[in-house]
Amino acid sequence: MLEKYDVRTDLALEKKERFDADNVEVKGVILEEDYDEELEIRTTTVIIETEKGAKIMGKPVGTYLTMEVPHMAVPDEDYHREISMKLAGHLKELLMKNQIISEAKKQNFSALVVGLGNRKVTPDALGPFVVDNLYVTRHIVNEYGKYAMGLEHANAISAMIPGVMAQTGMETLEMVKGVADITKPDVILAIDALAARSSRRLNRTIQIADTGISPGSGVGNHRNGLTKESLGIPVIGIGIPTVVDAATIVNDTMENMIAALESSKSLKGVGDVLKSYNATEKYELIQELISPHLNGMYVTPKDVDEMVKQISFTISEGLNVLFANNMLA
Amino acid sequence: MLEKYDVRTDLALEKKERFDADNVEVKGVILEEDYDEELEIRTTTVIIETEKGAKIMGKPVGTYLTMEVPHMAVPDEDYHREISMKLAGHLKELLMKNQIISEAKKQNFSALVVGLGNRKVTPDALGPFVVDNLYVTRHIVNEYGKYAMGLEHANAISAMIPGVMAQTGMETLEMVKGVADITKPDVILAIDALAARSSRRLNRTIQIADTGISPGSGVGNHRNGLTKESLGIPVIGIGIPTVVDAATIVNDTMENMIAALESSKSLKGVGDVLKSYNATEKYELIQELISPHLNGMYVTPKDVDEMVKQISFTISEGLNVLFANNMLA
Amino acid sequence: MLEKYDVRTDLALEKKERFDADNVEVKGVILEEDYDEELEIRTTTVIIETEKGAKIMGKPVGTYLTMEVPHMAVPDEDYHREISMKLAGHLKELLMKNQIISEAKKQNFSALVVGLGNRKVTPDALGPFVVDNLYVTRHIVNEYGKYAMGLEHANAISAMIPGVMAQTGMETLEMVKGVADITKPDVILAIDALAARSSRRLNRTIQIADTGISPGSGVGNHRNGLTKESLGIPVIGIGIPTVVDAATIVNDTMENMIAALESSKSLKGVGDVLKSYNATEKYELIQELISPHLNGMYVTPKDVDEMVKQISFTISEGLNVLFANNMLA
Amino acid sequence: MLEKYDVRTDLALEKKERFDADNVEVKGVILEEDYDEELEIRTTTVIIETEKGAKIMGKPVGTYLTMEVPHMAVPDEDYHREISMKLAGHLKELLMKNQIISEAKKQNFSALVVGLGNRKVTPDALGPFVVDNLYVTRHIVNEYGKYAMGLEHANAISAMIPGVMAQTGMETLEMVKGVADITKPDVILAIDALAARSSRRLNRTIQIADTGISPGSGVGNHRNGLTKESLGIPVIGIGIPTVVDAATIVNDTMENMIAALESSKSLKGVGDVLKSYNATEKYELIQELISPHLNGMYVTPKDVDEMVKQISFTISEGLNVLFANNMLA
Repeated sequence: MLEKYDVRTDLALEKKERFDADNVEVKGVILEEDYDEELEIRTTTVIIETEKGAKIMGKPVGTYLTMEVPHMAVPDEDYHREISMKLAGHLKELLMKNQIISEAKKQNFSALVVGLGNRKVTPDALGPFVVDNLYVTRHIVNEYGKYAMGLEHANAISAMIPGVMAQTGMETLEMVKGVADITKPDVILAIDALAARSSRRLNRTIQIADTGISPGSGVGNHRNGLTKESLGIPVIGIGIPTVVDAATIVNDTMENMIAALESSKSLKGVGDVLKSYNATEKYELIQELISPHLNGMYVTPKDVDEMVKQISFTISEGLNVLFANNMLA
Repeated sequence: MLEKYDVRTDLALEKKERFDADNVEVKGVILEEDYDEELEIRTTTVIIETEKGAKIMGKPVGTYLTMEVPHMAVPDEDYHREISMKLAGHLKELLMKNQIISEAKKQNFSALVVGLGNRKVTPDALGPFVVDNLYVTRHIVNEYGKYAMGLEHANAISAMIPGVMAQTGMETLEMVKGVADITKPDVILAIDALAARSSRRLNRTIQIADTGISPGSGVGNHRNGLTKESLGIPVIGIGIPTVVDAATIVNDTMENMIAALESSKSLKGVGDVLKSYNATEKYELIQELISPHLNGMYVTPKDVDEMVKQISFTISEGLNVLFANNMLA
Repeated sequence: MLEKYDVRTDLALEKKERFDADNVEVKGVILEEDYDEELEIRTTTVIIETEKGAKIMGKPVGTYLTMEVPHMAVPDEDYHREISMKLAGHLKELLMKNQIISEAKKQNFSALVVGLGNRKVTPDALGPFVVDNLYVTRHIVNEYGKYAMGLEHANAISAMIPGVMAQTGMETLEMVKGVADITKPDVILAIDALAARSSRRLNRTIQIADTGISPGSGVGNHRNGLTKESLGIPVIGIGIPTVVDAATIVNDTMENMIAALESSKSLKGVGDVLKSYNATEKYELIQELISPHLNGMYVTPKDVDEMVKQISFTISEGLNVLFANNMLA
Repeated sequence: MLEKYDVRTDLALEKKERFDADNVEVKGVILEEDYDEELEIRTTTVIIETEKGAKIMGKPVGTYLTMEVPHMAVPDEDYHREISMKLAGHLKELLMKNQIISEAKKQNFSALVVGLGNRKVTPDALGPFVVDNLYVTRHIVNEYGKYAMGLEHANAISAMIPGVMAQTGMETLEMVKGVADITKPDVILAIDALAARSSRRLNRTIQIADTGISPGSGVGNHRNGLTKESLGIPVIGIGIPTVVDAATIVNDTMENMIAALESSKSLKGVGDVLKSYNATEKYELIQELISPHLNGMYVTPKDVDEMVKQISFTISEGLNVLFANNMLA
């Protein structure tokens, strides 16, 4: 049974959907859905409540919020402002739920935004691009106090682009921990490009999780996670699927094919034969057929350069709105 | 029968291989192979000699030279110089075969290099990148004469990056024809990023053809070809596969799967059933299973940014060697 | 006398100011000024009416419109939209004055936008950047007709980035003429980065001229002009100063110094001595003191990368507004 | 007197030259010169030995090595390899002099390379560009041991690009200290773009200092220095002048002018008057004449984009050579 659900995906929602498709109930996991008709944005909240649920889902206990925005790649400025506002709202919810901000301390918190990924590899450059457009304030608050910004209260925002291990020789965790130990932010927000399971997710999905960044996730495959445990500071992970693993796409299509053959009557009984295979036999059949040349290959839309730039603006804007006082007031 | 061979590929070699796989002899088409053991470069020359051969191959009469260089993406400077030298040699052959240069007029010809594709879309940026690194001389020769370059003879090299229709509102053909009509080069060399059928070709293949650039080819899909017919000047096309169409990869894997099912005895007779399908039925089965989300999706290696830059240097260097006098002397 | 006014500047306004400073009246040259208090934009129109005026001004007969926008480098979206609207309005005036568009033919004209300069040299990249953000329509109008755009009338806009001679081996004029001969636009709009005389102009000035682009002008120093005479089609030049020649700045400061010494009483009579020099002696004194290392040096603001990007958006937007029907209707 | 020598420059050599020009001997400061005739590289070593010397020079006690390479901007690969070798040699000297490496510990040291500056501002991007081309090894050594690299000994090289305060909200010092505290390198090498006093230095100068990076230095003006005192680890600073302050150039030319007027007999006695001014009066005269528009303006060669890229390759290559075993063996 487990082989089927044992697929790597960075999206809690995709994992949950696999179980739901077979009407398998996962104990300790709650699913909530919300649909904004006007903006056509579906927000799904997966809450993993127990360690048992965490084990089945293959993800730590916590809250995973997924926004599905069908037109996220369409360059419409007004629409993107709405997405940014909505994203800011969801981030605020998570920050309050985790008591990082409260009614009493809404406008005096400090955050370190970390843009994960490799600036030189287009689908992995999303994190660095988000930081490029961020409005940082920590140095102003530190130097002149909050009044310098014409405000009674102001958040101290800092940001870093650590780079990837092949460029730095260091774990991302080492760099972020070093900087956080010195600057002591109240919370870390880590932005990362993800590999989705389905090409349907590309262009249109944002996942926010209060569990940080898991080891092994992301396009760049972080070896060590960025979490409250590893950093000593709460971490909100913001992940956006920008690629699909090529082998995944081929694998999925063949699973579909086997399913189609199995169920089809018009296909003259071939399904009966395939039905007699067990999961392992099917898995081996598929693996045999996938070209070894697909290793390290990714599926991306042709306009991925433009798309990554576009989405990074929307995320930066969401963070800028979140950190500005009017939103949190 | 034809359905099987009716696949779009920009590489004459890939087309030929499809026929060869089934031992189908194509009349009017000659295949020559050469293997350089030291450099591990396989060079295949497909010569389409007759209109009948052209019709079957789906490509115009002419010479198509394919270099397969397994380590083309490896950043080894010395090795790349060797590839560049070899490329220059093959280009020289084609230029002499087409009587663009001759023993008498080896060092006094003029060439316009056209870098096709979209600079802003990584896998399509190869053409523009090649031109970025080219050594142009036409303006020096025109202004000061060949002696200014310390040479008795010198080729007048010019270059342009026309951009793509979505950026210019013009056909590439209109722009190249306009410039060629005024500057009257002896030959046009057009560089283009191609979509290959097989991920095995990525990173490692260069095709040179004396038929120019065909309509509908390239990552950017040129609507009108750049050919001697359309431009009034001989055109050498230099194409390098940088992406594979995602639907193609899925399609191919499923074809493999059907073939495996058909031939396998261990698979308990399922093959017998599939064998009873005709080609159209199989094609429909596959199309039904390919996700519509794969439209416009490409498969590329993760390091495509680095790879395109690397290969563009090798191509530029090949052209620089070709145009410099010592090579052609 | 003439030495003093014989300074190279691409801005007709700067030339005119030199004469005005000394109350020298230039016959055949009209100056009109307009000040928009709300936007703080000063628009000056220099009209050179006669060949005699042209000779004195060192610029061809025609209309030169200069917008001075003090806050052009400030990243305020709303303000930039206003500048773009104003720019579109001035361009429309020039197009009507030159009978390129008229009440009868307002929405059916075709324009070729040419982004001059070198994309790889920041202060010279303005032209290419403007074209990057342009909305081109010619291919849509040609393919599907104006109705495809949901419009009764539509302008056919095309664009090209010719590159510079060191990259192409061709004169810009050759390339633009080639493309224009084939595509036959009603008008050419050429965008170019200029060298100003005064650092005060940087960041804040747009010059529009119905005389096209003069030979020897621009950061990249075009050898041949783009004019109605050379191209057979009316050319509107749009120039934006992005650098000042370093030698110019030093020269100007020293001229100021001499003037200060001459006029100053408190400086204990040194002025009397300098007054006895003639213009040639002063010029020689200054030239002797300017370091030869300043050749090829430019003065730019530190944030020129950001500034050029910012201004290019404003210009593109101005053109997009101009070409869209609502503006010209 | 002091006013004259009180000019800001990041180059110890420029400071020393000012004193030498007037035959002012500075106690506690030693100057050594070496000229490589073949490569035309002049290497000057300024050793500040005493605190008194440090006070006069306005720079901390330590060794400042300046390479002057007239053709550093010329794109000749072989020549650049020679510069890189020479740079590596000088760095090795400084590392040995400071006992960071020794005969016993030549191939087992760890270094953190810091690319200072702003990637988005061309003349300040040199540091980040150097790191882009660096060969880092720390992660390989940590993961697989030195044998993984086919070596008995190997240096553990890491690298970071901290960004600038306006982008990060953090002091560069905070970020580097954080990362160094966690990763504990034996030495930090910090690369920075400098502002030179004289345009003659641009394109051709590399300064290496074992005093690290001083506060207030660099194009980006670091508020806090990166030094052994502030970081607890020895810091080698590598600085390359890429710009000259525009006001500096104007100031210098006017100083020259005043000097010329003072000394000239042919200038009819004007010098006598100026001679009667004291230093403060002259300084005020000049400041009055410098345009306020020159604030924040820099003088750079037109091809600064290409030049910064070219030089960054040479520096990276020097570091790669230094860190590879063959050099230090």
